[in-house]
Amino acid sequence: MIRLLPAILILIVTVFHAHALEPKKTYGTASLMVVVERERGSVAVFDSIRHELLGRVEGLGNLRHATMVFSRDARYAYVIARDGVVSKIDLISMAVEAKAKAGENSIGIAISRDNKFIMVCNYEPGGVTILDSDTLKTVKEIPAVIKEFPDGTKLRSRTVGPLDTADNLMIFGLMEGGAVWVVDMRQEGFPVIKKFEDVGDTPYDQLITPDGRHYLVGLLNSDWMGLLDTWKLDSMKKIDVRERRAGLKAEGEKAPLYHIPHLESWGIANGLAFVPAFAEKRVIVYDMKDWSVVKSIPVAGTPLFVVARPGGREVWVDNVGAPGSPEERTIDVISVETLSVKKSIDAGKGALDPQFTPKGEAVYISIREEDKVAVYDTDTFKLLKEFPVHKPSGIFSSDRASKCGL
Amino acid sequence: MIRLLPAILILIVTVFHAHALEPKKTYGTASLMVVVERERGSVAVFDSIRHELLGRVEGLGNLRHATMVFSRDARYAYVIARDGVVSKIDLISMAVEAKAKAGENSIGIAISRDNKFIMVCNYEPGGVTILDSDTLKTVKEIPAVIKEFPDGTKLRSRTVGPLDTADNLMIFGLMEGGAVWVVDMRQEGFPVIKKFEDVGDTPYDQLITPDGRHYLVGLLNSDWMGLLDTWKLDSMKKIDVRERRAGLKAEGEKAPLYHIPHLESWGIANGLAFVPAFAEKRVIVYDMKDWSVVKSIPVAGTPLFVVARPGGREVWVDNVGAPGSPEERTIDVISVETLSVKKSIDAGKGALDPQFTPKGEAVYISIREEDKVAVYDTDTFKLLKEFPVHKPSGIFSSDRASKCGL
Repeated sequence: MIRLLPAILILIVTVFHAHALEPKKTYGTASLMVVVERERGSVAVFDSIRHELLGRVEGLGNLRHATMVFSRDARYAYVIARDGVVSKIDLISMAVEAKAKAGENSIGIAISRDNKFIMVCNYEPGGVTILDSDTLKTVKEIPAVIKEFPDGTKLRSRTVGPLDTADNLMIFGLMEGGAVWVVDMRQEGFPVIKKFEDVGDTPYDQLITPDGRHYLVGLLNSDWMGLLDTWKLDSMKKIDVRERRAGLKAEGEKAPLYHIPHLESWGIANGLAFVPAFAEKRVIVYDMKDWSVVKSIPVAGTPLFVVARPGGREVWVDNVGAPGSPEERTIDVISVETLSVKKSIDAGKGALDPQFTPKGEAVYISIREEDKVAVYDTDTFKLLKEFPVHKPSGIFSSDRASKCGL
Repeated sequence: MIRLLPAILILIVTVFHAHALEPKKTYGTASLMVVVERERGSVAVFDSIRHELLGRVEGLGNLRHATMVFSRDARYAYVIARDGVVSKIDLISMAVEAKAKAGENSIGIAISRDNKFIMVCNYEPGGVTILDSDTLKTVKEIPAVIKEFPDGTKLRSRTVGPLDTADNLMIFGLMEGGAVWVVDMRQEGFPVIKKFEDVGDTPYDQLITPDGRHYLVGLLNSDWMGLLDTWKLDSMKKIDVRERRAGLKAEGEKAPLYHIPHLESWGIANGLAFVPAFAEKRVIVYDMKDWSVVKSIPVAGTPLFVVARPGGREVWVDNVGAPGSPEERTIDVISVETLSVKKSIDAGKGALDPQFTPKGEAVYISIREEDKVAVYDTDTFKLLKEFPVHKPSGIFSSDRASKCGL
């Protein structure tokens, strides 16, 4: 018996040591800030009240263009890697709880209104995959078949999106199909209940308006956008956006289009939509009542993310420019009252993707080429804090958990 | 040494037993549902994804008219009891972490945009108290002095509210003062930066529009409401609400006014405000562009809470009626498209305060006289679950944590 004693003591020490090693922080999950470390395949998780690093989760794959959604309680983040792998990250234990292959080449992800299902949009094979949000088991695949040949061969389109709506629909675009499909997530078997054809040339992105009612689809090669009333699901109206695309047609190259601005990055405030122009150094302001152009606001570079501060009083814009240019260091702050730039911040090389805390008193910005994330006070424009983060790209605030279409 | 062995074994057993006793549930805090148990001075906390009781917290005092706000990460709920005691509840450990007296007779509470301060509105002594949100220590008291007599005596008004804004202001009403005051929570010493006088007779409640820009104050004895642009803070405009108050002036008593409907309970959807009439069985619909009356919608009783479902497609209404009447059992569901009641639910005796899950697929309703909370599927109107809850009153979803004015 006495020979057991050392073993027992080791056991006791181990038990207490494990606890001592992990003075596990306790925190609510409603205002976390999750930053993608693109090259390392990891995310860094911050407490956006105290601006503290809470932890990192690694092994998430190729995070180029990676995006994520949150479970409704914001305990989990679902990250889609470019290689089609979905990782379910536990933001409390800071571990990957489940992983599954949803496609070969994937770009978009959404969570259903009821928190039960994840939908992934795939470039390859063209279509969408629906996963159980708990286990990440595939429950349904919907191939985006746009043509069937006499020999039975099927042509599939790349898909983009998806977006969830308050009616528990999922909406996604078919790039080669020029179409938008609507899936009912309430019904057994997840039927495609609507197919809008001839929407335009190459749907590439979409958004849902903050009131939750209207869906907009952007088209790479058409001079309009599609507008759908999700309450009626009757027809896709055409919204004239020639103004936004003027730069593409200008004599000579006005400004190189380094990145295609995405619709999800539009700022919507005070009944206005603040929209990045293509290949021009300006933000175009549309009146959302009739989609008339209200104003064009010059900014430092070609805008990428145009983000409304909570409360809608300002719109923050990052800019793309040539590597090493002043443009790519500049964050422009537009006043929604005066519709002009009220402040330009030299935030560092490759400043992008401003993401506000839930009530907007601070903003997180990726400074990609300086391997850091900067946190600014939005009232004073003072730098509050910087964190070392490896090649940061997208930043996602967990208050998205309660919002449709994000 | 061998005699130590039993003690060591007991220690080991104790350590493991403690863990076995507490298979502590781990959960995110972004979608909790907190229900006030009025008579018991406690709250019950539910997981609104799985519809499970997570725990109860007791000893919160007199919870008549109790209300609460959440810390930004939704880890804490701050509950104000009628006797002026603020309790800071940890929604993870299910314990009261701090308690402080903020007044003698208190009715309203808000948390500042930056999560640092709590403001409480007091009937007695008339004024507001500002507390540190961490420790609940009083950092400032602002007496609502509306008259000073030659002998130095000061007359103080009861205060109502407060509301926080995206600019980190706090706004509250002075009932006897007929005034609205604005406090700047960013500035040292929390100065009152604006005092709007002669707003009307007895401000009793307020709201901030979902876009975060406009403030509305309800007046008990005036035929108008006050409307303030919080971006400009220039003047309090008068909005005609005689239609809403018609029942108060009707010959004979149209319907007894058992409870005064509060502005915070207004449903705002699709650019319309759905407003409970006073002492009449109808909901009045105003166009928020010009505050013209769009329609009057008959409902079962005198409406109390008029709540927009997330996405804005429906408005759910509880009704007050005589004890034992069918009215007080009825929840009416108004279609925002047709502006008429599409469904009436017999939910039980004393059904009140419908509170939606963050994306609106389910709704929690207090069935006060049956000591239960009912959970309905909002698509099918089917009862999903019932929980025994003692005399439930207000229900608060923790996604309020990221919203100003809630």
